[in-house]
Amino acid sequence: MKVSIIGATGYAGAELLGILLNHPEVEIGAITSESQTGASIADVYPHLRGVYDKKLSSMADKSQFADSQVVFIALPHGHAMGIGRELAAQGIKIIDLGADYRFRDEAVYEQWYKVPHTHPQSGAVYGLPELYRQQIKEAKIVGSAGCYTTASILALAPLAIRQLIDVRSIVVDAKSGVSGAGRSLNLGTHFAEMFDNLKAYNIGGHRHTPEIEQALTEFSGQEAVINFTPHLIPMSRGILSTCYANLLTGVTAEDVDQAFQDLYSEEYFVRLLGRGGYPAVKNTRGSNFCDLGWHVDPRTGRVIVVSAIDNLVKGAAGQAVQNFNVMFGFAENTGLTKIALYP
Amino acid sequence: MKVSIIGATGYAGAELLGILLNHPEVEIGAITSESQTGASIADVYPHLRGVYDKKLSSMADKSQFADSQVVFIALPHGHAMGIGRELAAQGIKIIDLGADYRFRDEAVYEQWYKVPHTHPQSGAVYGLPELYRQQIKEAKIVGSAGCYTTASILALAPLAIRQLIDVRSIVVDAKSGVSGAGRSLNLGTHFAEMFDNLKAYNIGGHRHTPEIEQALTEFSGQEAVINFTPHLIPMSRGILSTCYANLLTGVTAEDVDQAFQDLYSEEYFVRLLGRGGYPAVKNTRGSNFCDLGWHVDPRTGRVIVVSAIDNLVKGAAGQAVQNFNVMFGFAENTGLTKIALYP
Amino acid sequence: MKVSIIGATGYAGAELLGILLNHPEVEIGAITSESQTGASIADVYPHLRGVYDKKLSSMADKSQFADSQVVFIALPHGHAMGIGRELAAQGIKIIDLGADYRFRDEAVYEQWYKVPHTHPQSGAVYGLPELYRQQIKEAKIVGSAGCYTTASILALAPLAIRQLIDVRSIVVDAKSGVSGAGRSLNLGTHFAEMFDNLKAYNIGGHRHTPEIEQALTEFSGQEAVINFTPHLIPMSRGILSTCYANLLTGVTAEDVDQAFQDLYSEEYFVRLLGRGGYPAVKNTRGSNFCDLGWHVDPRTGRVIVVSAIDNLVKGAAGQAVQNFNVMFGFAENTGLTKIALYP
Amino acid sequence: MKVSIIGATGYAGAELLGILLNHPEVEIGAITSESQTGASIADVYPHLRGVYDKKLSSMADKSQFADSQVVFIALPHGHAMGIGRELAAQGIKIIDLGADYRFRDEAVYEQWYKVPHTHPQSGAVYGLPELYRQQIKEAKIVGSAGCYTTASILALAPLAIRQLIDVRSIVVDAKSGVSGAGRSLNLGTHFAEMFDNLKAYNIGGHRHTPEIEQALTEFSGQEAVINFTPHLIPMSRGILSTCYANLLTGVTAEDVDQAFQDLYSEEYFVRLLGRGGYPAVKNTRGSNFCDLGWHVDPRTGRVIVVSAIDNLVKGAAGQAVQNFNVMFGFAENTGLTKIALYP
Repeated sequence: MKVSIIGATGYAGAELLGILLNHPEVEIGAITSESQTGASIADVYPHLRGVYDKKLSSMADKSQFADSQVVFIALPHGHAMGIGRELAAQGIKIIDLGADYRFRDEAVYEQWYKVPHTHPQSGAVYGLPELYRQQIKEAKIVGSAGCYTTASILALAPLAIRQLIDVRSIVVDAKSGVSGAGRSLNLGTHFAEMFDNLKAYNIGGHRHTPEIEQALTEFSGQEAVINFTPHLIPMSRGILSTCYANLLTGVTAEDVDQAFQDLYSEEYFVRLLGRGGYPAVKNTRGSNFCDLGWHVDPRTGRVIVVSAIDNLVKGAAGQAVQNFNVMFGFAENTGLTKIALYP
Repeated sequence: MKVSIIGATGYAGAELLGILLNHPEVEIGAITSESQTGASIADVYPHLRGVYDKKLSSMADKSQFADSQVVFIALPHGHAMGIGRELAAQGIKIIDLGADYRFRDEAVYEQWYKVPHTHPQSGAVYGLPELYRQQIKEAKIVGSAGCYTTASILALAPLAIRQLIDVRSIVVDAKSGVSGAGRSLNLGTHFAEMFDNLKAYNIGGHRHTPEIEQALTEFSGQEAVINFTPHLIPMSRGILSTCYANLLTGVTAEDVDQAFQDLYSEEYFVRLLGRGGYPAVKNTRGSNFCDLGWHVDPRTGRVIVVSAIDNLVKGAAGQAVQNFNVMFGFAENTGLTKIALYP
Repeated sequence: MKVSIIGATGYAGAELLGILLNHPEVEIGAITSESQTGASIADVYPHLRGVYDKKLSSMADKSQFADSQVVFIALPHGHAMGIGRELAAQGIKIIDLGADYRFRDEAVYEQWYKVPHTHPQSGAVYGLPELYRQQIKEAKIVGSAGCYTTASILALAPLAIRQLIDVRSIVVDAKSGVSGAGRSLNLGTHFAEMFDNLKAYNIGGHRHTPEIEQALTEFSGQEAVINFTPHLIPMSRGILSTCYANLLTGVTAEDVDQAFQDLYSEEYFVRLLGRGGYPAVKNTRGSNFCDLGWHVDPRTGRVIVVSAIDNLVKGAAGQAVQNFNVMFGFAENTGLTKIALYP
Repeated sequence: MKVSIIGATGYAGAELLGILLNHPEVEIGAITSESQTGASIADVYPHLRGVYDKKLSSMADKSQFADSQVVFIALPHGHAMGIGRELAAQGIKIIDLGADYRFRDEAVYEQWYKVPHTHPQSGAVYGLPELYRQQIKEAKIVGSAGCYTTASILALAPLAIRQLIDVRSIVVDAKSGVSGAGRSLNLGTHFAEMFDNLKAYNIGGHRHTPEIEQALTEFSGQEAVINFTPHLIPMSRGILSTCYANLLTGVTAEDVDQAFQDLYSEEYFVRLLGRGGYPAVKNTRGSNFCDLGWHVDPRTGRVIVVSAIDNLVKGAAGQAVQNFNVMFGFAENTGLTKIALYP
């Protein structure tokens, strides 16, 4: 099956390329980059030398996607809608790793992203397979879930679905490795500035907030309004999301346990460390796993759920491929059997 | 003025020694270590070579402290009370960097630390100068505030004192560099295990919890019960504490601003980055500063305060020296003028 | 084909297990650990959860290896010889990741490792496939080449074989990530001690020295005596080896280029960055590649070769599997197609 | 004494400012930045908040330096000569942290730096106090020694002076933290690219090479031609220089020991770890010390000297202040008593 990648030179695009190279059902068609059109991908990412090389084209030439059954898009938000609409019109399926196709209500997108949505009513499905698998199977366009959101939604979904928590009491304190900030140069991600450093950013305004709220509102049937606080951690990859919520009256620790078991016990990529468990990002690094541990604090009546993922795999490229596998009926872990690089 | 250090070979003890070496009013007397009695401190910490060296004694020999006006104690909890009682009986002032003298109610100490308190009614004062300065001036024994607690209490005190927040709604999500786990060997703090890693620990049970609750209860006049979650970050030093609380009805962002200004505008070691400010641990590394920024989220009605300190300085040794300066009437930043090591 | 792993809980053993799990021709038999006998491997290495789990046995029970065609041994030096002799007597092939089977002359081993060699004349072959492929094909016992040695020998072999350099002028300055020091706890590899640190060790006495000398002596026909200096770098994985040698009179830069091309142009795992190229360890991290770049300095008459590998893959487990593939006639990169984890 | 800083916003300039702030004999006059003229230094470097703030001026306004007795210049090479000549004409003393005033022979400068030297015969003195103290005392212009060069020259000077080594056999393999690459953004020093990475650069062509050769030629009386290879290490600060040289016939290990003792036993900032000693960069981090250890390898007839410094202190700003202290007759460690930040 031929697939193309639009935006292959960001970290998510490069990770996607690396995964697809080892996917047994895939042949790679075009790979594009607007900033480095004409360059060889193995010059842009020398770790690919000897394994794969190809000239990067511009996405402006639409004909190169004609024989692709799927096009993955890994562009900054606002840039997928235009090309997405054109490809969709040609009957090509789309898996977008960005934000453009993640919202049911385009007004929410426009409010948080400050750009008009130019491909409304696209029929896009939210691409978090553990929770939207049936829709993804039928989808023509998938808005693959983001990194912070995947970690946070997977952590809270069992509690929201079972209505064990007050969805207006939620605080998500998330921590990400620096690759989450992308490959563009910035003083804040300059090595000497970020090494031995740690800081929060975008408090109250991070764009993954409405994505988490959308999912939790759907699951719980109550309007979720949350605090989401991202932090930058001096490591290259990984997200740890620490999620706090008030338990509703009468909810027991066993109810919490049951909710996680019921939702995830059959999920390959969600590993339950159980009540009292402590996920560590290193155990997921380079893999598509999401590790979950939860804690019930009787003193405060809160549940605290901790989740760990690799932001570029389960939080981006791996999830996109998992969505792809679901869409085309492949075993869900096809091409995604890598374990974490440890230590 | 002669001072001694009991427990000079842990990270806090060594930092304390380094600070006192440059303190113009201090002469160092005995330095002790039970695990390395007889060794030279410059062999244990080679960065001291050429600057300071001395044999480590055992604290068993009490006579060595006789001419010290103050003894600093940097021992694991449970070990300061015994020697503390003996020294206090001789009229020697004590500044303890551990937990033994931090609680007004010994029962709370015994409940969280699981050891009997053997020096009750000691008259000890809580050693956080910005908030307990008057008591510290008169104190004979100071229980210097801990690392996570300093970062968290300084962040929340203005709001508790002015009764702007619901003190039962507080969530403190704290992140610490690995030196906070001490110099004892442990698989979890082995370099290859912790590098490029990140994890939470002791959820719902960390012993700094009651220390924060004690202070916030005193300040607000309401019983504070909080969630405190510590995390280990792959860096050597620094704590970032992200604190969430529900604002009481009618409280405005300007009320919040005012509370911080009123409490801290004259404090040398508290730097206010203002509403919307983002402290970064690197700006405090090696210094005794606490940087504070706060955010009011109208969507959720919460205030989020972020604080950054160096866990070994403002969170331990620097604070102990600041307490010392207060006790003896020196300018509060005497010996504490170092700026952060940047980058 | 059934294979067993003796010593599965060190970093090299765990890496080996991870590689073999994805090797299409392999079924894993016993996995042993003397220090953690009876534990489950997924408890010892939680990144394996959900992928693979098995109880660790003691190697004392020899019967468990009876149906293995190959046994990989990843024990500290001195411990492979005993079990190796027994297994060899039963006709089981052995791939040892340690030093016991790497020396043609046991006296050299005994001199550097200070233990008697108890399995002399074993017929063991040196396990560096690019240079000893024919012998490995026929071997019953392979002493897989070490981490520093692989990086250094691959860098210098073309020059030694073509006799372009004075093999008594060689200086190898090597830098390794901290996983090279193993999982055993040690103050020198405690996170807070090694972070933001860098040091040399074992100058003039590192045990990889005679292994490099043995190979270079064989290739050049001259007795190579070298300086080898290892350094510990604050990163988890990777070796960079910077190798200096005096060019013999009349040797040109083009001669040097030709030597690398001739020896390695057909090698899958050796990537030639060419004259002026700069390998970076990150491009090899998690992969079995060795990247090589070389420089000719006309001012000094020296050639400088830089090589980069992942110490746990091409420097240990990956190389062991590559040796296995050679021994059994599989394509050499079977199970070894992972590209570097980047970034 | 009033001093000004031209180029205060690079890492070396900011470090210099931090040191001078605590220097008891100094009052800071102008601080300049061409790229951030008009900004406040505490906005550019927030770790200075609450301690020091001042608007950055442009160096174009020469009148601002009129009452400075010394001007420190921390500009990229090629930019100090012009302003230096003007200031010198006004009788202001100059301490330049860059390369412009380091070479006795301007032709060497021009050959390596590829710019014409516009202030020849300036009478500048090489600013490495341990080796050029007498000249510095009399100097009007000091070209303060660079980071790699300081580490390397201090390591090799005793051997060159006593003529114990063949100065044409020298290999210097140096490793630097990433702050050495400056604050300018670059893909190679982007956090996610450099974390867990390691590479060599500028082999055979680094501009610190002729500076080392100049000093060793002077000391030994023989023309030194060396290989110098710099590497970038994933840490913020610190240089470790591993230096190899062939011992001349008949030279003993004791001769080597004696050479180090004789030259450095009275030097405050050079700490001798002795034969067999292993300097670690962490022991010097933030301090002005240079730690030295040496090894004699009887197998190869080489001496290996390892030196560790902080590249921004002894390798730049601290050294500049040490030169200043020498020039004006202050105790050499005035303002330079900080010990390393450890851990």
